[in-house]
Amino acid sequence: MRTVSIHSSENANVKRWKKISENARAVDKLGLTLAEGAHLAQTALEKRADVRAVILRESTASEEAKALFAAYAQLGTASLFTVKESLFESVAPVAHGIGLCIELAVPKKTVPEKSLSVNAVYLDGVQDAGNVGTILRSALAAGVRYAALSPKSARIWSPKVLRAAMGAHFSMTLYEDVAARDLPRLFASERLAADARGGSDLFKTPDWERAPTVWMFGSEGPGLSDEALSVADARFLIPIDKACESLNVAAAAAVCLFEQKRRRSSV
Amino acid sequence: MRTVSIHSSENANVKRWKKISENARAVDKLGLTLAEGAHLAQTALEKRADVRAVILRESTASEEAKALFAAYAQLGTASLFTVKESLFESVAPVAHGIGLCIELAVPKKTVPEKSLSVNAVYLDGVQDAGNVGTILRSALAAGVRYAALSPKSARIWSPKVLRAAMGAHFSMTLYEDVAARDLPRLFASERLAADARGGSDLFKTPDWERAPTVWMFGSEGPGLSDEALSVADARFLIPIDKACESLNVAAAAAVCLFEQKRRRSSV
Repeated sequence: MRTVSIHSSENANVKRWKKISENARAVDKLGLTLAEGAHLAQTALEKRADVRAVILRESTASEEAKALFAAYAQLGTASLFTVKESLFESVAPVAHGIGLCIELAVPKKTVPEKSLSVNAVYLDGVQDAGNVGTILRSALAAGVRYAALSPKSARIWSPKVLRAAMGAHFSMTLYEDVAARDLPRLFASERLAADARGGSDLFKTPDWERAPTVWMFGSEGPGLSDEALSVADARFLIPIDKACESLNVAAAAAVCLFEQKRRRSSV
Repeated sequence: MRTVSIHSSENANVKRWKKISENARAVDKLGLTLAEGAHLAQTALEKRADVRAVILRESTASEEAKALFAAYAQLGTASLFTVKESLFESVAPVAHGIGLCIELAVPKKTVPEKSLSVNAVYLDGVQDAGNVGTILRSALAAGVRYAALSPKSARIWSPKVLRAAMGAHFSMTLYEDVAARDLPRLFASERLAADARGGSDLFKTPDWERAPTVWMFGSEGPGLSDEALSVADARFLIPIDKACESLNVAAAAAVCLFEQKRRRSSV
């Protein structure tokens, strides 16, 4: 495929990439997102993600970036662009990276007809993109391949969430804009609420790991909403030292998901 | 104590706060740092941290911010400032907060004469301020009250680390610029390396939690340095799904530290 060289900020592609990079809502509107760096480009390639364009920084891209660009060129399914350095930096979601971005089509998942008996996480109003991405990464690492997010959470396909998740998106099935009241229709699994305000001791309560679970995590300040708590089958508390008020939500999620993994692998 | 109102960007205090806010190295040089928001101001007050100044945004501070300002005024040990809105936003480490910052003296800890038999974490080249802060918060929550950082890690008293740690600084003893080779002199505890590249299974290996431990965590990409691995007494691996390459370092730390807490509390 022919490589197009871009040197003007008036180029329509550049304008679109800038929008995606600056505003997570543009990702929804366009159905496209940007992922920066070697790890994401490599994982998207391996997992055959729907990559529409590959964007290489002119002059100063790393050898790794050039090799990945060549690999995409060989595959022949994505448009290929080289972009003047200053322009590239104006559209790249991360400053001073290796000089490679990919533009991807966002896979839109609609709620299936029959509810799923799978292991999943549900994020209720988690707005920090780094936390959302880190939780997806931990979920996949703990063998959990489904996630659903409430309407008030960060946009799951935004460049920042993609970056923090380090490629987990490409191995998971992800649902957005799922209100807590609709969670039972999506997942038939046991709904377990992680709630810093109270509940059973995560470590001392037996058998919660036996059925497929949906672990539910709330936002940093207020925690899970009343709506989310109202659909929970059980509430769990991570026991913490009294000198500390609460855990970061991504740390709490890692603790719950790996306690689940530990229990299941010790059977 | 008299409250001083500041309206000029040429004011020496404003210049100093700006330096601290913009450059973590200024924190070292001045021995002072800034903490933003109600939670940190409240915790610093409760823990009797060495607060030198309290800075309130004029006109638009929240009621909570004003109440904390009044509490510090009553204590009478810190200088009190109100600062014009635009100036405040130029010095505050976080944009559009509640309108309150405190300026603190950094407690400088020197390595004690006799090595300590305590539970601790050691961060080797962890540069992301959010990760460092989150790990301190998880450590305190898991009952670990000592931390040491390698010279190449983020500056532990920087405003960003303070914010992510949510007050953990005020309940912990923190050492900076500790090279891995000096770790045995600081802590007499068992040195356990968390290493994504290999080691014993964290969950299946018995008894590592019995003695006081120093859990060692490395930077995002390369992991623990050779120097750090060379002083480790044992290496542990968190078993993860093969679809995922590694965990975020703060998620990995939460898993190790709470597995330790789980084992110790189940005795």
